Amino acid sequence: MTPPSLGKLWGIGVGPGDPELITVKAQRLLHHCAVVAFPAGRSGHPGVAQRILSPWLRPDQHQLPLWFPYVDDPAVLTAAWEQAAETVWEHLAQGQDVVFATEGDASFYSTFTYLAQTLQRQHPEVSVEVVPGVCSPLAAAAMLGQPLTIQHQRLTVIPAFYGVEGLEAALEAAEVVVLMKVASVYPQVWEILARRQLLHRSAVVVRATQPDQVMYRDLTDKPQLDLPYFSLLIVQCE
Amino acid sequence: MTPPSLGKLWGIGVGPGDPELITVKAQRLLHHCAVVAFPAGRSGHPGVAQRILSPWLRPDQHQLPLWFPYVDDPAVLTAAWEQAAETVWEHLAQGQDVVFATEGDASFYSTFTYLAQTLQRQHPEVSVEVVPGVCSPLAAAAMLGQPLTIQHQRLTVIPAFYGVEGLEAALEAAEVVVLMKVASVYPQVWEILARRQLLHRSAVVVRATQPDQVMYRDLTDKPQLDLPYFSLLIVQCE
Repeated sequence: MTPPSLGKLWGIGVGPGDPELITVKAQRLLHHCAVVAFPAGRSGHPGVAQRILSPWLRPDQHQLPLWFPYVDDPAVLTAAWEQAAETVWEHLAQGQDVVFATEGDASFYSTFTYLAQTLQRQHPEVSVEVVPGVCSPLAAAAMLGQPLTIQHQRLTVIPAFYGVEGLEAALEAAEVVVLMKVASVYPQVWEILARRQLLHRSAVVVRATQPDQVMYRDLTDKPQLDLPYFSLLIVQCE
Repeated sequence: MTPPSLGKLWGIGVGPGDPELITVKAQRLLHHCAVVAFPAGRSGHPGVAQRILSPWLRPDQHQLPLWFPYVDDPAVLTAAWEQAAETVWEHLAQGQDVVFATEGDASFYSTFTYLAQTLQRQHPEVSVEVVPGVCSPLAAAAMLGQPLTIQHQRLTVIPAFYGVEGLEAALEAAEVVVLMKVASVYPQVWEILARRQLLHRSAVVVRATQPDQVMYRDLTDKPQLDLPYFSLLIVQCE
């Protein structure tokens, strides 16, 4: 008996929140793949990627929520990636293609990277392909109705807080700075922007293009904001 | 007689090149708007945005190529933006919606910004909305089969060459650096990357996802490359 040929793993970015901000290619793959994987939600709620893709699914598709913990412990993370990769492998080995859907873009601070790298280490024969998507800084700029960057402007994206010096250095070296996931450090960031007189040139966008999107366009009178995890801050330094 | 209500201007990013990398929303707007505008091509050839959108057009739509010169002279640029804005206005004033299609994303170094700003200065009553798209650095990373950024990595995007010091500073301050439109300064950039032993961590992608895409994955033995305008370079510093 000939073993079935291996399935392929697709990493598709499903965009920032509005289901229509998925690409035509990602939508086609979502519709045609037998198995659709995505990060599992928390506390019984569907995850963000799962909510974005749900309008595009067929009822007969196999849905595969994969568990990725929100921790820093490398041993816990590695174990979760290995478990997820093995779960995906079981389908690929049966000749089923798998799409893994990730919010935003699959190459931009995405869980997909760890899943794909773990899978390719365990099973180097697996073919992996990424379909790029719309990332949240571009969605946030569109919602604000302002360009993210023009002409000669340098853009720096900071995924986490590097301390006061790190942010100051970025504000010196680039004309536009985006802080991803700013919630936990917002008061410190506000102080720095206040000192540099950049508060009126700064905006926070929460869950860009999702139904519960919130925008704060001028941070001058907002030293404290109660922000959820998916909040980003854009500073136009000039 | 009641004058017709004003049409709306949509700025849609049509993605990096593969027509399927347009979003479902942009595709819907392209299909339904009476007037589809885009940057005019050069020397009788269609422009990049025009080629990307052409599979999605209906035969009865009004196509509106708008001329934007490739020059630095502010007076020439301003005159071209004013002319383009006036051309768009003629349709909006008749109650027709207009989509302006731009390659990549409409907030990311896009001609759309100047068109929209000029139009809103001349006719502040016009409503403008942007639909975000897939930008070329994310498409390039997907084609290379590598993440653009992970975890704590800072990303700096440099649209033009700032001299040796500017690039050195970016390479110091970020873990991932993207140089857009690197063609004209490639030999100088190569020298800097060689000195910092980053050539094997650097890649050039030409026309990502377009039919004539070219990739150079390791620049060690490539001090000279004959690159077209739409070439970008990604450096993974760590």
